[in-house]
Amino acid sequence: MASNNLAFPTSDYLARLDKLRAAMEAREIDWLVITDPSNMAWISGYDGWSFYVHQAVVVGTSGVPLWWGRAMDGLGALRTVYMPDDHVIGYDDTYVQNPEKHPHETLAALLRDKGAGSARIGVELDNYYYSAAAHAALVAHLPDATLVDATGLVNWQRAVKSPAEIDRMRKAAGIVEAMHTRILEVAEPGLPKHHLVAEILRTSVLGTDDAWGDYPAIVPLTPSGMDATAPHLTWDDKPMREGEATFFEIAGVYRRYHCPQSRTLFLGTMPDAYRRAEDAVLEASAQALAQAKPGNTCEDIATAFNSTLNRLGYEKDSRCGYAIGLSYPPDWGERTMSFRAGDTTVLEPGMTFHFMPALWLDDGGIEITEPILITETGADCLSSLPREVSVK
Amino acid sequence: MASNNLAFPTSDYLARLDKLRAAMEAREIDWLVITDPSNMAWISGYDGWSFYVHQAVVVGTSGVPLWWGRAMDGLGALRTVYMPDDHVIGYDDTYVQNPEKHPHETLAALLRDKGAGSARIGVELDNYYYSAAAHAALVAHLPDATLVDATGLVNWQRAVKSPAEIDRMRKAAGIVEAMHTRILEVAEPGLPKHHLVAEILRTSVLGTDDAWGDYPAIVPLTPSGMDATAPHLTWDDKPMREGEATFFEIAGVYRRYHCPQSRTLFLGTMPDAYRRAEDAVLEASAQALAQAKPGNTCEDIATAFNSTLNRLGYEKDSRCGYAIGLSYPPDWGERTMSFRAGDTTVLEPGMTFHFMPALWLDDGGIEITEPILITETGADCLSSLPREVSVK
Repeated sequence: MASNNLAFPTSDYLARLDKLRAAMEAREIDWLVITDPSNMAWISGYDGWSFYVHQAVVVGTSGVPLWWGRAMDGLGALRTVYMPDDHVIGYDDTYVQNPEKHPHETLAALLRDKGAGSARIGVELDNYYYSAAAHAALVAHLPDATLVDATGLVNWQRAVKSPAEIDRMRKAAGIVEAMHTRILEVAEPGLPKHHLVAEILRTSVLGTDDAWGDYPAIVPLTPSGMDATAPHLTWDDKPMREGEATFFEIAGVYRRYHCPQSRTLFLGTMPDAYRRAEDAVLEASAQALAQAKPGNTCEDIATAFNSTLNRLGYEKDSRCGYAIGLSYPPDWGERTMSFRAGDTTVLEPGMTFHFMPALWLDDGGIEITEPILITETGADCLSSLPREVSVK
Repeated sequence: MASNNLAFPTSDYLARLDKLRAAMEAREIDWLVITDPSNMAWISGYDGWSFYVHQAVVVGTSGVPLWWGRAMDGLGALRTVYMPDDHVIGYDDTYVQNPEKHPHETLAALLRDKGAGSARIGVELDNYYYSAAAHAALVAHLPDATLVDATGLVNWQRAVKSPAEIDRMRKAAGIVEAMHTRILEVAEPGLPKHHLVAEILRTSVLGTDDAWGDYPAIVPLTPSGMDATAPHLTWDDKPMREGEATFFEIAGVYRRYHCPQSRTLFLGTMPDAYRRAEDAVLEASAQALAQAKPGNTCEDIATAFNSTLNRLGYEKDSRCGYAIGLSYPPDWGERTMSFRAGDTTVLEPGMTFHFMPALWLDDGGIEITEPILITETGADCLSSLPREVSVK
C-alpha cells in the first residue's frame, strides 16, 4: 500500500467503489474492466503517464479492485493506488506494441483466474484506451464470457463531486485566473505566439499560493485572426497583430482536476461586428446560466442559450457545454452530459460543467466561457474573471 | 486548399501517398481508414488538437484523400491539409459523445458513397483513436465490406525520414539540449519540483534561435528518489533534496517532430552504487550504439546492450529503444520497431530511434538516453549533450 502519493483518503475510494458497484448491479455487470485513465484514477488513485500502453483497473462485485498493466508501470501503481501490493499485476514487456501478441490476452487470463471466465463483463467500448484490437483479444480469449458495453458507466458516477473534489476545482480555478491575468500582462502586437504560450505554461505549473499546477488534458489553444475561425488549432511562432482577436482556451489543473476557462483578447480597436457578437454571447450566456439550477435539464440551458442567440441574429450549431472534473489527455470533458437539445439529464447540486458559448465568426472567434458548479439554488461560477472580451 | 499552415510542400504529401499506396496494394487493401493523428498528419498535413473526437483520413487506391471529422474541426482541416476544400467532410455536432449514435455511422455512409461498400478496407485496429465502438459501428454499417487490420501500416512508411524531416528532428534536438541545460542551471536542493517543471516547459516552447517549441506527446517526467523507481510518474510540489537522483525524461519538439532525451541529475555526493550503475549503463550503451548501423537488426542492439549489462551485474527486462519522429499524445514513439529480442527489423539509413537504456534501481532511477539517426555507416547522435549523470 502506497499512501505516500495517494490522492484521496482510502475511505473515499471505498465509498466510490460502493457507488460503482450499485451501478454495476443495476446493469447486471459482474466484472468491470476500466480503461479510461480518469476512471482508473477515480476508482483506484492510479496516476501516471502510462496510458500509451494497455492497462486497466478491474472491479468485481466483491473484493478489492485489481490494477493491471505493463510490469514497469506496476511500480508507479504501487506508489499511487490504495489497494494492497498483491493487487497490482504486471504483464511482461514483450507484450508492448508487439503485433505478435496482445496484452489483453494476459488480462483475459487474469479474469479467468479470478473466476470471471463465464461472467458478464463490462468494457468501455468507446474509449481512447480500449482499442478495437484490445476488445478482439478479450472476446477471443474469454469465449464463455458475455462482454457488454459499459462506456460511461464510471464517468456517470463521477458527475456529482464531493466537497474535496470541488475544493480541487476551486484551486484549479485560481490557477486559470492567474493564467488569464498573465496573458493580459504579456500579450502585445509583435509578440511571437510561442513566447506567450511559454508564459502561459509557466504560470499554469507555478500555480497559486495554495495550489501547484498539474498538466492539462488539452494544451493551450491560442489561435489568432483567421486561425481562430477554427476551434482546435495549436500555436506557432507568428507574431500577434493589431486588429486581430485571439482566444485562449486553457485550463488550470490541480491534482488532475480541471477548471477550463476561455477568454478572448482583441489587440487594437475592436470592430463593431465583434462588439455586437460579444454582446450577443453575453446576453445569451446570462439567459443560459439563469437556467443552470437543480431540477432543470442540460437541454434547458442549451435552449435558453440558442434561442437568445438566434433572436440576436447569431447561430451556434454545436453544444454549449459539457461536464468537467478529473481528466487525462486527450479530453478534459467527462464525456457524459452535454448542453444541447435532447440531453434531458436533470441537473443536481455538485455537478460541474464547462459552459462553453464559443462563437466562431467568418474572420475570427470569440470564446468567453464559464466553469460552473450547480448549487442548491443555481450555478456558482468557479472563477471570478470579468466576463468580457479584453481589449489592449 | 490552405497552404498557409501547410507543414511540408504538397509534393511531399503526394510522394508519401505513392509510397503508402504501394504498401496498400501489397496488402490488397482498397481503402484505408487512418485514425492515428500522427499518421493523419503525415499523409495529409492535418494538425489540430481534435483527436479527442472521432476523425480520420481516408485513402483509396486512386484519387485525392479525404479528411473526415467533426464539422467544427473541418475548419481547422481547411487551414492545414493540402487537399482541396471539398475533400474535407464534417459530421454534425450531435454525433459528438452521444451514446444514441456513433460518428462512424457517417464514415460508413461516406465510404459507401465513394463505392467502398464491398471493398477491402484497412483499419488501425490497435490505435488509441480507433475504439472498439468505432470498429463495431463500421462493421455494422458496412455489411458487405471486409475490414482488415492495418495497424502500423502507415507508421511503417514513416520509418525512414526525409532530409526535411531529419532537419526538424535536429531542430528538436537543439530544443531538448536547451531544456537539459536549463535544468542544470535551476535545479537545487529545496526547489519545489513544479517550479523546475515550469522552467522546463517555458524553455521547451521558447525553443532556440531557429526553432520554436511545439507541445510534446508526453509531458515531462521528472521523478526524484523513490518515485524515480517507477518510470512514468509526473510531477508534484515536493522540494528537490540532497542525496536524491532525479531523472528527466523530456523531449524537444519542432512542428510535431520529437527528439526525446533523458538525463539524470544527482544532488549532493553520488553514492558508489549509482556510479557503478552509471558506468554499466554507459559501457552497455557504447556497445549497443556500435551495433546501430545499416544491415544490423533492432535485436542486435538489444543483444549488445543486454549482454554487456548482464556481464556487469545488472539486468533490464524492458526494451532499450524504439522508433521516433512525428507524434501526437499520448506517445512519442512510432509504435513500429523496438530494440528487443525478436525484433529482426533491418536498420536502414534515415531511420530514427530513441535509444533508451533506462535502469530502475531499488532506490531510484538512471536514464541517460540518446536520440539517434541511422546513417550510411553507423549512428549519429542527434544531440551533443554529455553522456553522464550530472552531479550538483
